[in-house]
Amino acid sequence: MASPEFQRVTISGDYCAGVTVEDYEQAAQSLLKALLIREKYSRLAYHRFTRTTARFLSEARNEKWKVEDEVLPDILPYPHEGEDPYSMEGIPDNLNFHLQMKDGIVHVYDDADALREQRPHSLPYPDLETFAVDLSHVLAMIADGPTYVHRTLSTNETPTHRTPNPNPKTHLHHDCQQTDVDTHIHAAACMNQKHLLKFIKSTYQTEEDRVVLEKNGQKMTLKEVFHKLSMDPYDLTVDSLDVHAGRQTFHRFDKFNSKYNPVGASELREIYLKTDNYIRGEYFARLIKEVAKELEDSKYQHAEPRLSIYGRSTSEWEGLATWFIEHKVHSPNMRWIIQVPRLYDVFRSKKLVPNFAKMLENIFLPLFEATVNPQKHKAVHVFLKYVTGFDSVDDESKHSDHLFSYKSPTPEEWTTDNNPPYTYYLFYMYANIMVLNNLRRERGLNTFQFRPHCGEAGSITHLVSAFLTADNISHGLNLKKSPVLQYLYYLAQIPIAMSPLSNNSLFLQYSKNPLREFLHKGLCVSLSTDDPMQFHYTKEALMEEYAIAAQLWKLSTCDLCEIARNSVLQSGLSHQEKKHFLGSNYLQDGPEGNDIRRTNVAQIRMAYRYETLCNELSFLVDAVKTDV
Amino acid sequence: MASPEFQRVTISGDYCAGVTVEDYEQAAQSLLKALLIREKYSRLAYHRFTRTTARFLSEARNEKWKVEDEVLPDILPYPHEGEDPYSMEGIPDNLNFHLQMKDGIVHVYDDADALREQRPHSLPYPDLETFAVDLSHVLAMIADGPTYVHRTLSTNETPTHRTPNPNPKTHLHHDCQQTDVDTHIHAAACMNQKHLLKFIKSTYQTEEDRVVLEKNGQKMTLKEVFHKLSMDPYDLTVDSLDVHAGRQTFHRFDKFNSKYNPVGASELREIYLKTDNYIRGEYFARLIKEVAKELEDSKYQHAEPRLSIYGRSTSEWEGLATWFIEHKVHSPNMRWIIQVPRLYDVFRSKKLVPNFAKMLENIFLPLFEATVNPQKHKAVHVFLKYVTGFDSVDDESKHSDHLFSYKSPTPEEWTTDNNPPYTYYLFYMYANIMVLNNLRRERGLNTFQFRPHCGEAGSITHLVSAFLTADNISHGLNLKKSPVLQYLYYLAQIPIAMSPLSNNSLFLQYSKNPLREFLHKGLCVSLSTDDPMQFHYTKEALMEEYAIAAQLWKLSTCDLCEIARNSVLQSGLSHQEKKHFLGSNYLQDGPEGNDIRRTNVAQIRMAYRYETLCNELSFLVDAVKTDV
Repeated sequence: MASPEFQRVTISGDYCAGVTVEDYEQAAQSLLKALLIREKYSRLAYHRFTRTTARFLSEARNEKWKVEDEVLPDILPYPHEGEDPYSMEGIPDNLNFHLQMKDGIVHVYDDADALREQRPHSLPYPDLETFAVDLSHVLAMIADGPTYVHRTLSTNETPTHRTPNPNPKTHLHHDCQQTDVDTHIHAAACMNQKHLLKFIKSTYQTEEDRVVLEKNGQKMTLKEVFHKLSMDPYDLTVDSLDVHAGRQTFHRFDKFNSKYNPVGASELREIYLKTDNYIRGEYFARLIKEVAKELEDSKYQHAEPRLSIYGRSTSEWEGLATWFIEHKVHSPNMRWIIQVPRLYDVFRSKKLVPNFAKMLENIFLPLFEATVNPQKHKAVHVFLKYVTGFDSVDDESKHSDHLFSYKSPTPEEWTTDNNPPYTYYLFYMYANIMVLNNLRRERGLNTFQFRPHCGEAGSITHLVSAFLTADNISHGLNLKKSPVLQYLYYLAQIPIAMSPLSNNSLFLQYSKNPLREFLHKGLCVSLSTDDPMQFHYTKEALMEEYAIAAQLWKLSTCDLCEIARNSVLQSGLSHQEKKHFLGSNYLQDGPEGNDIRRTNVAQIRMAYRYETLCNELSFLVDAVKTDV
Repeated sequence: MASPEFQRVTISGDYCAGVTVEDYEQAAQSLLKALLIREKYSRLAYHRFTRTTARFLSEARNEKWKVEDEVLPDILPYPHEGEDPYSMEGIPDNLNFHLQMKDGIVHVYDDADALREQRPHSLPYPDLETFAVDLSHVLAMIADGPTYVHRTLSTNETPTHRTPNPNPKTHLHHDCQQTDVDTHIHAAACMNQKHLLKFIKSTYQTEEDRVVLEKNGQKMTLKEVFHKLSMDPYDLTVDSLDVHAGRQTFHRFDKFNSKYNPVGASELREIYLKTDNYIRGEYFARLIKEVAKELEDSKYQHAEPRLSIYGRSTSEWEGLATWFIEHKVHSPNMRWIIQVPRLYDVFRSKKLVPNFAKMLENIFLPLFEATVNPQKHKAVHVFLKYVTGFDSVDDESKHSDHLFSYKSPTPEEWTTDNNPPYTYYLFYMYANIMVLNNLRRERGLNTFQFRPHCGEAGSITHLVSAFLTADNISHGLNLKKSPVLQYLYYLAQIPIAMSPLSNNSLFLQYSKNPLREFLHKGLCVSLSTDDPMQFHYTKEALMEEYAIAAQLWKLSTCDLCEIARNSVLQSGLSHQEKKHFLGSNYLQDGPEGNDIRRTNVAQIRMAYRYETLCNELSFLVDAVKTDV
């Protein structure tokens, strides 16, 4: 494919005036080292690492990059054409491996002897010390301050790129719509307030005498529940439902969390928005399936809802998987992500877990068991086909008293009531996912991506931790505060699912949101809704998100299509699906990887992004090479 | 009905510190005089004048206000139940009156003798001198500066009012939705870009061989038109359609106007968005009816689209009315407004009219003729049943060389190529509408409201002219610049249809839009779309407008419902419909006029608005009375 033809305006001149050669080389070395660290962690966990950057890193090592070097998540396109998504046929055999949690990380042993002799199965097992050293390298560089951040991130503004008329003969017709993915949305808030309201009313109309709740041994019908709440669902309005965020939630995450309780009643949350209640999560499943139906009707819209695993008990996975299969929750337009709230302190104080390791075990051991012996854990095995990743969630502005370091106690030693810091959570989630991914890949099973909430609030170190451990992140607002880290996220093209309407209700006024700036600097940002129930007004929450961004930041169609393309790249859609939605060469660099008939992103925009990134990377690599 | 019960917080203290008694009285007198002037012009034209203010003005005159004093537009609820909307039955007889344009205003004479002797039929005929004097009073007061503007407009912020749970037994179920009216929308842009795109493609698919255009005597099929434009509709995208406003239209009204041409081709505008083309406006009618269908399906949404009368020729009305009836364009969810672009200079330079009076005659004489002799002008007579008002439109930032005064030439004398100033246009439109309304009321026919675009840009004097002549206005942004005038619009409760998304693309950044401020100060503002084709992204343009305002200004449900209620008040819906949508007592002051089951506006909000307005008005009246 020939390079796209278009006019260029070239501005030349000195690009690093005022910076000494030593500073320049020093900075380039640090930046490259940080990128190499991320590459290492990404490869180990089967996380995506952008090809352009990988090529330059090879060059810096005087190696030649080969396609075979590329590591991608193994997300398999389940179910296959015509297959029953919930089929329990053809499940792999028991490997008879032994499993043991050790220093907070599940270890795998080929047999009892190996376990006794502590000879683990050959998998990479990360250790805290190495991680702490790697982390401190990046932290130190950031603390040194922005000695050298190239002009891209300070002065470049993406030019306006008009989408040219695509080739008439081959133009696919998407009803003028590109494929997009809502890359960050919580299942318990994936319906909008009107939808939930109508659903509550309709269940009351048709099933008021159904037993829906058991409390202190007493069974209650829907009618009795509403009677106890002194409420007639007939009179409920979106206003009295009171699930929408507003002025009163800004900088009040506590008040926001209570918005998950319709009419302020935790009973209604229990009945309508939980998977493990008296009605076995039926209402919640029906609500989600109604949302999925709308996505399927729209054809090109996808979503990646988060379902919770808490780590309070070992039976959570079995329960969630059974719910998923029993209610047939799978949709071709949804991919599932497991969110783990950082609630160790709550569970510990309620004596549900003795130490942090036990929480990790509750979360991860069932996954290893289902991987080693899927015959015994059929439901979990089937459910995991549709799970593509993990999220770590909670209020990031909450502070931990403990300072993470290589001397931090092991999870088994973490017995206090205090919550571990964000970085500690991230490392142990990453470590277990990484080992699990390697084990699953050995078995030919799908792998998972770690996609934590990060940089919504709190310390800048959160973003450093995720730079190592995450495939991609949600929010990333605090990159605003660190030009160096922002530059690293740019160079590594780490996807960021941004939700400016959510931020506007919680942490940051819309006009101050850095999304526009990040996009125009070339960071890989997508748009997501977070919680349509709390934040959105229209039936099309993701469209509302795009429309408002377009209106207020005067984004062009090309900008919007680029964001939509980023959302597909970032998502847990399979390689096959990404080929279908972005073009069969989507992994290739620059315009060659772009099928404009599918993405509607102008080739000049693709070329601009590619060339700008290459320029930045080659400055770094050249600086290091001349040094040698 | 008892006063609503709620907690109040009262803050007392000195309210006009630093203002001398003389200044205070002087200011109160000027303000009251301005209000009396508006009241006079409103009564003459059957424009709405808010009851609360009217009561205080009566008091200031030491009179007692009576319900019979109230003047309302005569908008009749056509068609009656079961009636054919286009029926030509029962049309009133010819009055055999004579008509003559005189000093730019159509005069009515009982017979030929009266015409010869210049004894007009007894109707109020406004004159330019009186108007100029009245106008100068208000202008002078504003020029004097804000000697006294009470605290309402400087410090008051509307408290947050939650909608309480309405009476369970009587709560009407609107599917959680209030009635709202899109009070400002242009018919030629009332569909969104995707809708237009789909429509163009579908006509091409099914009717490519239809003759749709005649140019220079040559007839062209749809296929030939697209061929001539070197374009295959199959390849059209919203991007190539290029009707959406963006960065490039800000402060460039000229570029914005060209956005009405799909793909930049005036031929497509001619074919798809005009009423008087080769296909007799069929496509345009079909598009509008598709939009109407969506409103009808949503049940509670209404719109007031603008159709153009230019004043180039006398036959325009007949053409427009015939189009309306032939294509059965009436919808119960739409009311029609006639927009007159201020294009005299263009028509004069093309020698289409010899002077400004001729343009006025082309616009208004056919209406008088259809009123006097509907038998002879059946189509216009029927169409006028569904027309509720007039709009004056164009770029207000264009400057006229002429300074309006009582010495301005008469319209017959206005023979230069220069365009008359905004105020001159407004006076002559008002004058003719006013005489026409009085004539129509005599005949028991519906009257019209004058609802010009005003204060979108340009001189502050525009807003002074409209203060006298308009029932309500669109935009009103420039009220930002004059606290005194803003206070007058508040005291008179003049409705303002605001379109912040339109402004954001043309004249004023969203974040600087005064809508939130106006709303919280108690001005009567509604939300409207202006041009969904150019400005909106979702299928629900008005909902998009509400959603963005709610998101960015953190408006409460109560705020949104108040705006929706204002939109019904402002609209050209009939008295009967307003009773239905707002409550049967909607004309009454304060909470008594509010039926919360229909409007969903909290009574405490209604009481707050009412009491605040009464306070302001009583300060003024007291100041004048103590003076006596």
